[in-house]
Order: sequence, then C-alpha cells, then structure tokens
Amino acid sequence: MKTVKDLGERKVIEMILELLDSMPNMPVPFGDDVSAIQIDEEKLITAKVDMLVGKTDVPQGMSVRQAARKAIVMNVSDFAAKGAKPIAALVSLGLPSNLTEEEVRQIGLGLNDGAREYEIYVIGGDTNESSDLIIDCALVGICKKMNLMMRSGARPGDIVAVTGYFGKTSSGLKILLNGLFPPEELRHPLVESVLMPKARLREGLALAEIGAVTSSIDSSDGLAWSLHELSKASGVGFIIENIPVAPEVRAFAEKYALDPVDLSLYGGEEYELVVTVKPELWDKANEVLGRFKTPLIKIGKVVEEKKIKVKINGETKVVESRGWEHFKSSC
Amino acid sequence: MKTVKDLGERKVIEMILELLDSMPNMPVPFGDDVSAIQIDEEKLITAKVDMLVGKTDVPQGMSVRQAARKAIVMNVSDFAAKGAKPIAALVSLGLPSNLTEEEVRQIGLGLNDGAREYEIYVIGGDTNESSDLIIDCALVGICKKMNLMMRSGARPGDIVAVTGYFGKTSSGLKILLNGLFPPEELRHPLVESVLMPKARLREGLALAEIGAVTSSIDSSDGLAWSLHELSKASGVGFIIENIPVAPEVRAFAEKYALDPVDLSLYGGEEYELVVTVKPELWDKANEVLGRFKTPLIKIGKVVEEKKIKVKINGETKVVESRGWEHFKSSC
Repeated sequence: MKTVKDLGERKVIEMILELLDSMPNMPVPFGDDVSAIQIDEEKLITAKVDMLVGKTDVPQGMSVRQAARKAIVMNVSDFAAKGAKPIAALVSLGLPSNLTEEEVRQIGLGLNDGAREYEIYVIGGDTNESSDLIIDCALVGICKKMNLMMRSGARPGDIVAVTGYFGKTSSGLKILLNGLFPPEELRHPLVESVLMPKARLREGLALAEIGAVTSSIDSSDGLAWSLHELSKASGVGFIIENIPVAPEVRAFAEKYALDPVDLSLYGGEEYELVVTVKPELWDKANEVLGRFKTPLIKIGKVVEEKKIKVKINGETKVVESRGWEHFKSSC
Repeated sequence: MKTVKDLGERKVIEMILELLDSMPNMPVPFGDDVSAIQIDEEKLITAKVDMLVGKTDVPQGMSVRQAARKAIVMNVSDFAAKGAKPIAALVSLGLPSNLTEEEVRQIGLGLNDGAREYEIYVIGGDTNESSDLIIDCALVGICKKMNLMMRSGARPGDIVAVTGYFGKTSSGLKILLNGLFPPEELRHPLVESVLMPKARLREGLALAEIGAVTSSIDSSDGLAWSLHELSKASGVGFIIENIPVAPEVRAFAEKYALDPVDLSLYGGEEYELVVTVKPELWDKANEVLGRFKTPLIKIGKVVEEKKIKVKINGETKVVESRGWEHFKSSC
C-alpha cells in the first residue's frame, strides 16, 4: 500500500480536499494563501494555519527563538500576499518532554517578536506533548472583500513583478547545512535571510489599497513554484525576461560554482510578493512601495499561452514546476 | 536545568503568557475556552486552536477516522461552552511519512464527519511531515458579544448544573487501555463515549440565547477541574450536593471495585457543559434544553467561600483540583 512518502504533500492535500464538503459561496477558493468567511457584504474574516515542524523547518543554526518568530512571520507573509491585515494569532505548541525551561522561554519571546513586528497579538493557544517541536500558528484578521488579492485574476498584458531580489535563502541554507564559510559580507545577509525572514506586510496592504494588483502570491515555495501557481489559478502564462538574482547570490554562486538562476528560481522560504500589476497602475504601485524603500521589480509580462518561459542570454527556456514538497523533498 | 516534563503543561503556559504582550481591550481574557477579536460594538470573531497528538490523545481502539472527527469535536465543545457558533475549521496536519494512503483517506473522512455534524466546513489547512500523528484544528466563528458565556460571572446563589451524566469516558478509557470486558450493555455506551464524543453545541447556543447562564466551561479536563476553573475565574465557591454519576458507570464501578465518584469527578475528554444558572431563569433553561431531550441536571449551588465542597452520604469533603495535564499525567 502506498504511504504518505510515496504520495507527497500535494497528492495528500488533493485526496483530503476531495473528501471535504465545500462551504457554499466560499469567498476564497481552497488552495489560495488564506481562507475567508463572509462577515457581511463588504467585510471578510481571513484566516490561515501554518505549521512549523522542528525537523523540517528549523535548519541547523536557527535558534528556538528565531524558529518561533518564523512560525508567525511565514503566516504573516500569506496575509501580506492577499493584502489582508492580520490581527491576532493563536498558537498550538507541540513540545518534546525534554525541552528545557529556557527553551520554553525562548519560544515565548520568539512568538512575541514575530507578532509585535507586524502589530499582531497572540491571543490564545494550546500546549501539547509531542516527539517533534511543533509550532502551529493560526492567524486571523478582517479585510475588505474588494481589497483581497487572489491568485486568480492575472490577465495577458499585465506586468509580472516582485518585491525583492531572490536566491538569498537557498544560498543561506547551503551555508548553514553544508557548513560553508564565504566572506562575512556575503555570509551575513544570506544567513540572515534564513534566520530572520521578513514578511512584506506593509507592501501587500498598500498594493491592495490602490487596486493595482490582479493576482498575488508569496514566494515561500520558491519563485518558479509561485509563478506556476499564479499561472494555474489565473489560466495564463508568463514570459520572464529578468530573473531578479540578488547581488550577494551572484557572488556566492560564483565562489562555489553554483547556478545563480537555479538558486533564485527554485529556492523557498523566501517571503517576497510575486504579483501581476495593471500596466496603467504600474507607476502608482511603484510610488507606493517607494514609501517603504521597497523595490517593485518588473520581471516579465503575462501572456495567453499557459506556459512559463524565461529568456536568459537570448535563449528561451520553459521554467519547471518544482519547489519544496513535504515527504518528497529531502531536508 | 528543568525540562518541560518537570514543569508540566500549566506552568509552561503560564511562562509563555508572561512573555506575550496582551492585546488591549481583549474581549475575552487569556485562558478562557475561546479567544475573541472585536468586529464592532456588537459582534466578535471567536477563535480556538486545539491540537490532537496521536500518542497522547488517541487511545488504543480509536480509529484514525474517529481521531480526526474528535479533533474537530473537542474544539466545537469549547465553542458550545461559550455559546458561540463555529463557522469554519482550518486544519494543520502533521503526518508520519509511513502513514498509508487509506489512513489519509480516513483522516479526510473523519474531519468531514466532525465538521458536518456541527454544520461547519473545513475551509483550509496545512500538511507537514512529523514523527507523531498531529491533527491541529483551528475553529473560527462569529458571535454576539452579549451572548458570550465566559468562565467568570458566577454569583453566590446561582445554580450549578451540567448537561449530562459523568464518568463514562474515564470508564471507557479503562476498558480500552486495560482490555476489560464488561457485558456489552455496559461496554458499548462507555467505549462509545470515548470513541465518538459529542459536543453540546445546540445546547450551548440555546442557553446563550436566553441569557440564563452566568458562567460556563466544558468538562474536557474533568468535572472537578472544570468546577475549579469556574471558581477561580468567578471568585466564588461551590457546594456540590449531587454528583451526576452515569448509571452505566455505577454498574461498571461495582463490577471492577472502582469508586464511581472518582470516575465522575476526575475523568476528562468528557464534553458536557458545566454552567451556573440564574435561579429565576432555571425553568426556562430547563425547558430550552428539553427541546433537545438534553437534561439540565442541578448538581449544587454557588457560594461565597472560594472552595469546592461536595456532600456525599452526609459527609462534606473538599474536591481536589486535579485533572489531566500534559507532560505530568501518564497516558
């Protein structure tokens, strides 16, 4: 009989979804970054759960405090991508019985760090005994229905853009897991991107407010994967002309003979926004993000053909749909 | 250095709470059965997370489908106790990689069972790899602020009541864990109370609607523990004159030379409501629950002295504050 390891995360999710009755008139479909419940004609409750498991989500070198902070931040990033403001978090903990008092303290501090950075409060939770360290965060907020930026909605002609440069977390992970020692000016920003990720919440909320975005997702499963998800949900394709490789990643890749494009496309745990923007509102979107000193980097355009192609050095290639998958990917 | 095992669940929770900034004007204090966020003057979002861990919460004899159903039901019970209607569930799964395809299917079926029994829908979730089976359910609803039945609010003179007879789950657990074989007419209801628990949602909502209840909690940590929690939150005590021992529990206790009162007071995973009722609305509360053929059993009265005393056979004893505690209690 097949096991979860043979099936992989995405097949498991698909199997379970098939067995669930769907809520009539769901404001946001299954599979988008947050779920929603209608409050009234104008307002939605938005909610999201995201579980951090020590053995797969906490790389060597990350402290318990950083892990707890990350459990909140990775969830905030999904709200950011939808343009929805989170208000409060509820946190379920699974703790191994040999965890120390000091580690418990560090978890409390990390949860508060993550929450307060985004003006959220932790308002409830649950504590249990488990073999792994589990920090499962449920985030709840209220948002205007018309502001919500879904994965579906990209139209041919829209501009594909991202809020930052890529490849830092995949490079940082290689440093941590393989014990590499690049010069400090490379090591620090790359490792920091893994240990202290930031969610683009202000940016997502501001973009939602001006109605410039036709589809949106965060890049937590890797840039390539995110583009494929937007493509699937919107029924369009993308031509990517500019892969936004971070300068530190270029230098790191050169030093260790790695492919900087691969590091940038197929990373993960990188929390930028990947959006499609109405061309007529491009300047306004740029101006709005400029207020936070955040770049809005044009990487390509939306096309009808449902493929994701990238132009590199005059060559056009199809971008594979691969990214991190629980049970199938190795840590 | 002390570990979580030395500290126990309640101390761990206390330590973490101390490190969290509190949300200003929290509509429901930390530690009540659900958390809440204000929507407007009249309405609240209510939310709750409750994690089921295979090794501590799923006794031998309980199927995976029953475990998944229970993960929803135990959460619904907390909403029931507050008189708050749950609308949707988000479920985080931690799955061991050797879980079979059929077990995944059973989890999907069980989640849907639990949700649809209480007119809830599962609207989102997250899937991860973990050593234990983890089913962590977040429940979200909307409720009228004035209807919410908190733990605080019991006043001397109120009637202490419960919605059912006790001791069935602790007896059922003994049957499952110790491999006992009482006659089928005892075995069936006792084991069934463990495998297929029911939440008193209709009852909680109806009681909230008539404003008869001054304080409320569910009995998931045992009747004694629940009474202590109400006492602490309300700053009152109780005189318990009638311990509502289920008839099957009396028969079971007699057969195996156990104390039926102990089985009823110090069980757990039993999902009745424990409430204090305004005397002038007692008849109305009774009538309302009668519609669902659910008894409202008077077990005692609220007194000023902050102790919980029970009268048994003319003797008065103080009820200990003990109940299930993760890390400290053995399975």
